[in-house]
Amino acid sequence: MSHRPAAETRATFARFVQITTRWMDNDVYAHVNNVVYYSFFDTAVNQYLIESGCLDIQTGTQIGLVVETSCRYFSPIAFPDRVAAGIRVAHLGTSSVRYEVGLFRNDEEIASAQGHFVHVYVDRASNRPAPLSEALRNALAPLMRPAPVS
Amino acid sequence: MSHRPAAETRATFARFVQITTRWMDNDVYAHVNNVVYYSFFDTAVNQYLIESGCLDIQTGTQIGLVVETSCRYFSPIAFPDRVAAGIRVAHLGTSSVRYEVGLFRNDEEIASAQGHFVHVYVDRASNRPAPLSEALRNALAPLMRPAPVS
Amino acid sequence: MSHRPAAETRATFARFVQITTRWMDNDVYAHVNNVVYYSFFDTAVNQYLIESGCLDIQTGTQIGLVVETSCRYFSPIAFPDRVAAGIRVAHLGTSSVRYEVGLFRNDEEIASAQGHFVHVYVDRASNRPAPLSEALRNALAPLMRPAPVS
Amino acid sequence: MSHRPAAETRATFARFVQITTRWMDNDVYAHVNNVVYYSFFDTAVNQYLIESGCLDIQTGTQIGLVVETSCRYFSPIAFPDRVAAGIRVAHLGTSSVRYEVGLFRNDEEIASAQGHFVHVYVDRASNRPAPLSEALRNALAPLMRPAPVS
Repeated sequence: MSHRPAAETRATFARFVQITTRWMDNDVYAHVNNVVYYSFFDTAVNQYLIESGCLDIQTGTQIGLVVETSCRYFSPIAFPDRVAAGIRVAHLGTSSVRYEVGLFRNDEEIASAQGHFVHVYVDRASNRPAPLSEALRNALAPLMRPAPVS
Repeated sequence: MSHRPAAETRATFARFVQITTRWMDNDVYAHVNNVVYYSFFDTAVNQYLIESGCLDIQTGTQIGLVVETSCRYFSPIAFPDRVAAGIRVAHLGTSSVRYEVGLFRNDEEIASAQGHFVHVYVDRASNRPAPLSEALRNALAPLMRPAPVS
Repeated sequence: MSHRPAAETRATFARFVQITTRWMDNDVYAHVNNVVYYSFFDTAVNQYLIESGCLDIQTGTQIGLVVETSCRYFSPIAFPDRVAAGIRVAHLGTSSVRYEVGLFRNDEEIASAQGHFVHVYVDRASNRPAPLSEALRNALAPLMRPAPVS
Repeated sequence: MSHRPAAETRATFARFVQITTRWMDNDVYAHVNNVVYYSFFDTAVNQYLIESGCLDIQTGTQIGLVVETSCRYFSPIAFPDRVAAGIRVAHLGTSSVRYEVGLFRNDEEIASAQGHFVHVYVDRASNRPAPLSEALRNALAPLMRPAPVS
């Protein structure tokens, strides 16, 4: 825990997705439960992909499977706070993408939590890794950011 | 099922709370799962109460316990749709409130789903029903609507 | 609220599905949130259908869409309680089924909550109501119970 | 991604908590959504603590706040699978605990997913880190395992 990275600012993220919290997000300690933060990650990335036109959850031939995720929690978020989820791409592989996500409470500039998740793209029928489509690479290009020095 | 009430319009609700959908709200049929609609009900009513200053979830002496809920589903909502949750009060009892909620997909005028839930207010320490506080009655007055003729 | 039906006993239900509660089911009042009860309903009915071999969520041509649900809450359930979800069929229509569900906390004999939900079965491709399949009717026959007099 | 640790077996975990999956855990790809795995982590650890008598979520003066979590996903779990969540303690600090969790599908011996989370224990009133209580240290002692060589 000695090398715990510091919370980042909004400026290190490329796009933001607005998310509203829900009554049942709060757990018994009256803060958004740690699990729910991952649904914000999932939502931010997939919403960006759907709105970019490169993810069709019903008929697309390529889908992203999540192979690893992590999150660090700096300060609490609680319903009815709003959340701005900042996203960036830290690494683009042949068939995988490392997304990094920061969660900002209401209008705050410093992240309440941040983490990452890695998508491996597979052919939907065979379930085998497949090279990222041209459309997906184009959609992700504006999200590319060098990882901040930690 | 022959007397199923028709979907209502936005005009029959008194206030609206904006809610964003999440990736994991979609179930295997690619629509928001029926369970999640109730979290929209809960969120809409409690957010109104918190923002009205009459519900303090940490220190309030009176809390609302849910004793019954129902929902009718007319047409699907799916992530990444936005939801406007319309609320009204159909009945104010001594210690209970019947809320009615309509869920509107994106900018649609006709409800995708509507339902109700009944809160019984209790004293937090004793867990016994308690008359609605003056502050709560004042907050709920602008939500009062006669139930539409069905 | 004057004609609120009484909580039923296990004897009025035909089959039981065992469900474990989760930390995040508890809301800020330290009880399972009212929304989560509906996920127990959904789970109980669909698990019975899958285990009976008459629901294939990936390739089945007929799926059940939920058109209405309701729940009455009698006494709290809280993590880490276990839940036994009792199910019965109260009405079998041409293309619809009315399920009734009772939720029993740990080894209790009296329901903590009970409710219903109505499935309309549709052809997956056309989304049009379709007569219940022979396999489904056979699976549901052992669940048929007359509704208790209320 | 080249140094991805292999999935572990049940033998590397100290205690197991049985968890049932739910219909709505499955996402649009018909597998348990990646977010839900963290609710299994949370449930396994907190259930062990509650049953050990060292966590009282209503009145305890010390609570565990989650400061970081991670998960690696090896193979899918899907409703209606059962999950056995294996837990162990990899590190006990002055006021923090690093838990490691493996999720085993049905009767499988190889983990479908594994991860960790770090609790920092704080005094409930002041929200300041507090040394782990004697009761908690005693409850955690049987969970201690050296981390497997990776």
